[in-house]
Amino acid sequence: MAKNITPKEKDYSQWYLDVIRAAEMADYAPVRGCMVVRPTGYAIWELVQKHFDDAFKETGHVNAAFPLLIPQSFLSKEAEHVEGFAPECAVVTHAGGEELEEPLIVRPTSETVIGHMYSKWVQSWRDLPILINQWCNVMRWEKRPRLFLRTSEFLWQEGHTAHASKDEAVEETLRMLEVYRRIMTDYLALPVLEGEKTEGERFPGADNTYTCETMMSDKKALQAGTSHYLGQNFAKAFEIQFQNRDGEMEFAYTTSWGVSTRLIGAIIMTHSDNDGLVLPPRIAPVKAVIVPISTSGEKIEKELMPKAAELKAALNEALGGRFVSIDSQFHMRPGDRFFSHLQRGVPLRLELGEKEYAAEKLRVVRRDTGEKLEIAWADAPAAIPALLEEIQQNLYRRALEFRLANTHRADSFEEFKMLLEEKGGFIEVFFDGTKEDEKAIKEATGATPRCFPFAHSEERGKCFYTGKEGARKAIFAKAY
Amino acid sequence: MAKNITPKEKDYSQWYLDVIRAAEMADYAPVRGCMVVRPTGYAIWELVQKHFDDAFKETGHVNAAFPLLIPQSFLSKEAEHVEGFAPECAVVTHAGGEELEEPLIVRPTSETVIGHMYSKWVQSWRDLPILINQWCNVMRWEKRPRLFLRTSEFLWQEGHTAHASKDEAVEETLRMLEVYRRIMTDYLALPVLEGEKTEGERFPGADNTYTCETMMSDKKALQAGTSHYLGQNFAKAFEIQFQNRDGEMEFAYTTSWGVSTRLIGAIIMTHSDNDGLVLPPRIAPVKAVIVPISTSGEKIEKELMPKAAELKAALNEALGGRFVSIDSQFHMRPGDRFFSHLQRGVPLRLELGEKEYAAEKLRVVRRDTGEKLEIAWADAPAAIPALLEEIQQNLYRRALEFRLANTHRADSFEEFKMLLEEKGGFIEVFFDGTKEDEKAIKEATGATPRCFPFAHSEERGKCFYTGKEGARKAIFAKAY
Repeated sequence: MAKNITPKEKDYSQWYLDVIRAAEMADYAPVRGCMVVRPTGYAIWELVQKHFDDAFKETGHVNAAFPLLIPQSFLSKEAEHVEGFAPECAVVTHAGGEELEEPLIVRPTSETVIGHMYSKWVQSWRDLPILINQWCNVMRWEKRPRLFLRTSEFLWQEGHTAHASKDEAVEETLRMLEVYRRIMTDYLALPVLEGEKTEGERFPGADNTYTCETMMSDKKALQAGTSHYLGQNFAKAFEIQFQNRDGEMEFAYTTSWGVSTRLIGAIIMTHSDNDGLVLPPRIAPVKAVIVPISTSGEKIEKELMPKAAELKAALNEALGGRFVSIDSQFHMRPGDRFFSHLQRGVPLRLELGEKEYAAEKLRVVRRDTGEKLEIAWADAPAAIPALLEEIQQNLYRRALEFRLANTHRADSFEEFKMLLEEKGGFIEVFFDGTKEDEKAIKEATGATPRCFPFAHSEERGKCFYTGKEGARKAIFAKAY
Repeated sequence: MAKNITPKEKDYSQWYLDVIRAAEMADYAPVRGCMVVRPTGYAIWELVQKHFDDAFKETGHVNAAFPLLIPQSFLSKEAEHVEGFAPECAVVTHAGGEELEEPLIVRPTSETVIGHMYSKWVQSWRDLPILINQWCNVMRWEKRPRLFLRTSEFLWQEGHTAHASKDEAVEETLRMLEVYRRIMTDYLALPVLEGEKTEGERFPGADNTYTCETMMSDKKALQAGTSHYLGQNFAKAFEIQFQNRDGEMEFAYTTSWGVSTRLIGAIIMTHSDNDGLVLPPRIAPVKAVIVPISTSGEKIEKELMPKAAELKAALNEALGGRFVSIDSQFHMRPGDRFFSHLQRGVPLRLELGEKEYAAEKLRVVRRDTGEKLEIAWADAPAAIPALLEEIQQNLYRRALEFRLANTHRADSFEEFKMLLEEKGGFIEVFFDGTKEDEKAIKEATGATPRCFPFAHSEERGKCFYTGKEGARKAIFAKAY
């Protein structure tokens, strides 16, 4: 039952895949680049979805479903957009036994088809804003797939909003970025940095892209979610026009924003260790597992299992959901039973052996620290939720400390290259370069600008690369 | 704002489309045969999903995500399956800028690719049962599309389970049919008939198909959900083999079952009227709308809106969710405001005018009966949920009475044809014909066997078509 996991110090990529395999979170599908999200992985995605979806609804958004297939001609209506996405498209050429007159693209993202629909729904300023989100699958053909991080098909949400003014649209773009930051921080325990993307890293067709960036345990960056202010680009391409309060026709201002199953990759690479998956309790489908242990079938049946069931009910009640399970793998040795839950990232293991039974206690083992403690049955409904909260906070703090310890400051390109090579991580610089400069830096070092972080938006200095004064503070890093 | 709806007596098809359009539930997409489910429609789907999903989880199922694209060769591995689905497939031939070596099918259903994955996951009887469901989009190219009922892409859930014995798999097939019946009855207020499909109506590749059939308000039948016992057919095609308790290799026994966005079509056609959508309260995203009415801006701002907000909060608290909205379309006439909610199927309208304000009351109007009553503010948190429950029961009872009143019994083919022509609806017969007989009956009358209803499974008689004795009781009808 126990599955070998390559130590992350030895081979980080292999460690990552081993963690996924051991936890049975996902598998490669028979179609190259596509994945199967297995129940353990999908249950995490369901909790992630729930937290985001609740926050979208609290901020006035509604869900809808737009079509999977998009006429090829739609993509070409926004010049930058088609350039960005055309090379990654999967194309339906035949359907219902016939060749199609116009090929259809499996959506890589839905700005175009949604823009087309909005143009039909919007006539007056009274029809605005439109605040719609969709949870769906999208497809971007991937030559170098990697489970959760880069797969040809992935699951995501894409918010698409249309507004009567630029100010309102920009405000929406930033509001949703902040929703992302809050959910990522509070539930996924990812200490993300909010910031603005450089020109070279913008979404194809956006006037501005904002991002939540986070550091993995190999010190590389991962873009966890982005929010785009699209200006009037898509409104002009798809004729989303409205009569404003002054009776004049005007193009709408639109936004889009998305997070995907890639977040599961971020969770794995932020928190897990060489024993396997470690999950923040707030997104753990199983928050605690009760493991009854005895060699006596009679004791198991008459004492341990009934007590386990009773404790499970009390704990589920305290936790407000079906979050506690009972291990009944009695054909396995206790060590292997423990390990199976360790590998799946269950935050707390509650051992119930004969000794614990006699003392009316549980032996509690934390997944994050390995710490062992004893909790009386009577105290469990209060103590277990508190302990889970402590684990949640500990995982966040640990990840934040890791990022801070691995963020360095460079004043020159020489220093930048040296730091990147010797220490890795996030490099803080002042930057005022062009798209071409970004490209040259990437070619020389492998690092890309992750963002101009909001936290330092007031600071100005001399660009580490061009030497220009008045440059903004930026973060560079090698990234997933 | 008020949109014209063609009376159903005049043109049922147009009435159906008008109801959808007026309620802004869905739109045709720019790709032929595909639809956009708009927020009003999608919010209903979310509630439908929630009720089914809860029931699936209560019966031990977990969710997962399998790939959208299936290698074309997979479809051919089960002979009946490929014959049933190949003509409806959409085919991806190019991706990532290149022609693919093997074309990929956009999934019409996922037995094949899931069978392939199960064969990797199952080795021993200990790995069984596998009880997985997926919520996703599927594609069956449709020549005569109709919103919700027949669209090239639709949303659904497909459960796929694998078991170590035939008995267990059959039990699962019937358990899920019963889950369907319960949710359809209790939440969607659809009085469905459970039964077994005839050979000619089985799922391609199934040993047996069970169904929930329901009657629309034009007396035609609609298949609301099906559950299939697949025997070892897919296990053999995809080599889902396990070592049984005796140490022998054996093929697994599999099932599949699904319901789709078609259910929204069933809800519309069962309950709605010539004013538009009527929704059972348990799946109504907005269960009640408060409409403050006054010509005085000051009264609206200082008295009516604050009171409406207070009532909304109290009612949401009583209903356990965000189910109450406030109408603030003050630029419209009261009648038009009322009508906009009527058309969207909101079960209760709570009018709050100056007179009601002075008397600390609400004027309550039921969507199902048009009945008007007055409820004191203080009574509303208890009275409104009770009234919604009464509407729920009334809609179910009304639909059941309609079905019973439109179910007729025929003993001969002559009588069958006459009843079908003169009265329509469900025709109860004894039937023991072949696939060819079914086809001939359909060609002659347009009616198909809907099922052998469980409620009459013990009855035997002479077949109305072949004259054979010992035939089972069956329901025939024209169907969607």
